[in-house]
Amino acid sequence: MTTQDVNELRTYLQQTAKRVEDVLIKSLPQEQVNPILQEAMAYSLQAGGKRMRPIMTLTACEAVGGNTVQALPAAAAIEMIHTYSLIHDDLPAMDNDDYRRGKLTNHKVYGEAMAILAGDGLLTHAFHTLVHGSGKEQVAPEVILQLVQELSAYAGPTGMVGGQAYDLQAEKQRVDLAGLNHIHTHKTGDLIVCSLRAGAMIGGANPAQLAAISTFGYCIGLAFQIQDDILDVTGDEKMLGKKTNSDEKLSKSTYPQLLGIEKSKQTVQALTDEGKQALMEAGLTDEKRLLQLADFLVKRES
Amino acid sequence: MTTQDVNELRTYLQQTAKRVEDVLIKSLPQEQVNPILQEAMAYSLQAGGKRMRPIMTLTACEAVGGNTVQALPAAAAIEMIHTYSLIHDDLPAMDNDDYRRGKLTNHKVYGEAMAILAGDGLLTHAFHTLVHGSGKEQVAPEVILQLVQELSAYAGPTGMVGGQAYDLQAEKQRVDLAGLNHIHTHKTGDLIVCSLRAGAMIGGANPAQLAAISTFGYCIGLAFQIQDDILDVTGDEKMLGKKTNSDEKLSKSTYPQLLGIEKSKQTVQALTDEGKQALMEAGLTDEKRLLQLADFLVKRES
Repeated sequence: MTTQDVNELRTYLQQTAKRVEDVLIKSLPQEQVNPILQEAMAYSLQAGGKRMRPIMTLTACEAVGGNTVQALPAAAAIEMIHTYSLIHDDLPAMDNDDYRRGKLTNHKVYGEAMAILAGDGLLTHAFHTLVHGSGKEQVAPEVILQLVQELSAYAGPTGMVGGQAYDLQAEKQRVDLAGLNHIHTHKTGDLIVCSLRAGAMIGGANPAQLAAISTFGYCIGLAFQIQDDILDVTGDEKMLGKKTNSDEKLSKSTYPQLLGIEKSKQTVQALTDEGKQALMEAGLTDEKRLLQLADFLVKRES
Repeated sequence: MTTQDVNELRTYLQQTAKRVEDVLIKSLPQEQVNPILQEAMAYSLQAGGKRMRPIMTLTACEAVGGNTVQALPAAAAIEMIHTYSLIHDDLPAMDNDDYRRGKLTNHKVYGEAMAILAGDGLLTHAFHTLVHGSGKEQVAPEVILQLVQELSAYAGPTGMVGGQAYDLQAEKQRVDLAGLNHIHTHKTGDLIVCSLRAGAMIGGANPAQLAAISTFGYCIGLAFQIQDDILDVTGDEKMLGKKTNSDEKLSKSTYPQLLGIEKSKQTVQALTDEGKQALMEAGLTDEKRLLQLADFLVKRES
């Protein structure tokens, strides 16, 4: 990408994140909700982050020629799911993190019990947002039903939650490269794939396009995770807003440990290329943004 | 009820619970799921209990002349939601219970982290079961969409999770009767109402019938909770399979504390009568079972 491309992409990312954030907060229940619970849910929803998943939803919708306004509720729902998973992941019984993105984690502010409930609340409300919001935006009923099935599968026991369970077990035993791929395919990859597929489905993608977008998602998701592991070794603590080497402290297996830094970087590049290739052969309306997004995500330094 | 009625009702409850349990286990993902996570989810799903909520779903469906086979996926989804809420409620950061229904709680068997994930997995998979299963049983798409919205609202931040948040706060401060009603209306009542409404909607209830069934649900739900508080004071530890007086130990407000045992019992009866009255005026196809269920639930001794 040229410098101009990068600047233009940054503007797109900022504007799109802003669109998502506006919908996110509006999508929370406005009344008849416990005020502390409401605050705890909003705290983590508003704690920043790249909004990578909802941006992917909107970008995939646009890539197949869809109307991104229709994809906003799905984008918000997916960010709620992502946010709940971070709240629960940070709990003392899980990763026991005090900070995320430079801010206190949910349970450090609201206590463990309320953090568990805030996570449960966001997870449950994600499905409400998906169905209620998509209905208001005139997404076809059969597409909404398909979206609920996909989100619950990619985020549930066969998807993200399953990946987290594998990750838990990996704390107690060394895993090989196949095992690590399996963990990250589910823990990180599944929700990224779901984000892209949701946008594409709302935008009216055909089955071949959906399949290509899934391949793209798995490749980028895995590349993103390997990059995360690399940054965890090489990154600057302040830039990441969390403690580096936290996985190593828990003696978890990581890509740099298994492959070394150089080989890890090569794998990131190979996966990115593979994902982009699948996308370029899919006959999308305009794949440019998704391709840029892939490069941007895996070349990030924080 | 005559002794014959009671015996006949017991048989109905056992048979209906069995139907639900068969669907529950079949509804768990059968492949591509982490084996320990799968075991942890199945452990709590199979840990017994009265199956009150799914039985209400099927009974409400029948009461409006519907086909209960069509309501089985919704019944299973609601029991998954109920089960996840118990797993998270029992966690050390919440009620810190070691036993439930005479069995070790989920986190005592699988550890806290896996118990959190088992709860998250069941909650997420409930929506999959609801949509996928109901679709297979030919429930109309617009009804399934309505069911997802209702389940996510009654179980989420404006419903059950909100009630749990109020309950948490009540541990730190005394609440009055209105406050206690508010907690239980959401913490217990909302999912009971949802169970009944789901069955009735699938069975084709009209709006007036649905409204009457909601009133019935709120009355019975609150009566059930007050009865629970009464049993917590008067009940036998072995019969309940959990420690009695556990709420008092945490100095939570309860109905017997605020009203005394006798007035609490009168309130249970008054609420039961009010709920039954609403139902009898609703012009259902056959309300007999629901009326029996109400009596049975609030007159239980465990």
